[in-house]
Amino acid sequence: MMAGEHEKNLVEILEENHPIDINKYTNFVHSPQCGAIATFHGNTRDTFDGKTVIELRYEAYVPMAIRCLKSICSSARSMWDLNAIAVAHRLGPVSVGETSVFVAISSVHRADALDACKFVIDEIKASVPIWKKEVYSNGEVWKENIEFLERRPEIGKTRVCCKPKVKVQDDEAVKSSCCRSKTKVEDDGSM
Amino acid sequence: MMAGEHEKNLVEILEENHPIDINKYTNFVHSPQCGAIATFHGNTRDTFDGKTVIELRYEAYVPMAIRCLKSICSSARSMWDLNAIAVAHRLGPVSVGETSVFVAISSVHRADALDACKFVIDEIKASVPIWKKEVYSNGEVWKENIEFLERRPEIGKTRVCCKPKVKVQDDEAVKSSCCRSKTKVEDDGSM
Repeated sequence: MMAGEHEKNLVEILEENHPIDINKYTNFVHSPQCGAIATFHGNTRDTFDGKTVIELRYEAYVPMAIRCLKSICSSARSMWDLNAIAVAHRLGPVSVGETSVFVAISSVHRADALDACKFVIDEIKASVPIWKKEVYSNGEVWKENIEFLERRPEIGKTRVCCKPKVKVQDDEAVKSSCCRSKTKVEDDGSM
Repeated sequence: MMAGEHEKNLVEILEENHPIDINKYTNFVHSPQCGAIATFHGNTRDTFDGKTVIELRYEAYVPMAIRCLKSICSSARSMWDLNAIAVAHRLGPVSVGETSVFVAISSVHRADALDACKFVIDEIKASVPIWKKEVYSNGEVWKENIEFLERRPEIGKTRVCCKPKVKVQDDEAVKSSCCRSKTKVEDDGSM
């Protein structure tokens, strides 16, 4: 689809205790014109660095996260010939085995959907202001996605509109731009 | 998973008029150890080269196709760290919008599942003895996957065990090896 045409995107950040309805998003991208649907499910896994994980908890600055997700969709469309894109991300606790983020993309030919699906989930992890707390059997910690830390700002600028993201307790700071550093600064001094 | 350990694979070729149960295969690969599930749906689309498609019809030499699919799973496991792989392919007529082939792969980290999913569907298209008849509003034709025609034999040999596949009317010819050229030779002279 050419830029500027109607883009069939569904971007949703779900409130606490709302599981992701996989079929809803897969059906959204389904089209008789498309030979391909690629999907990605990001699930809570039971261990991290050898520690037993009980659940993950997600927080987001929702308006900015939605803007970033839409921007990622536009970037993907600029690089691949895509029909529809659906992205859903949960907030709040997500138990082991449950899906916290889901991406579904359809295209006429399979390479477009497959490559775009990988791009979209990589960009979500690297640049969308959604923070993850890992709750272990013996404690909990806010986690930074390793790929955000590894991404150099100049790479981010060339691929999507979102800047590195920072969540700070003063929300005015984050309202001034789309996406900034993903570092979440807490007041409790525990980090 | 290391080669030689128990490999959790589900490979199925479905008889005519058996739709693919997406949830069954997705659930098969689901594991609390895995942070990622990547899937690919190959669907019948409504047009090809500007012609209106009514349905696709698939035929396979099933024992050889199963062997080839299992070989592709083993190849994928040799290249990526994968938990479970599910592959399902329908036979017979598949109407526009329906899924003819589905791949689901789980892994601890997402890059493994995503990259392996693309590899597996590419290999299925290129080397598994499943033939596709496109039924148009004004006729029908057996189709060759373009990537099979483009693949040089030496590439196939280095990536999977399957050789280029040939289906000929004399089945003895195909029983002598795993996978050969994908060209289907018909007796009716229409090609």
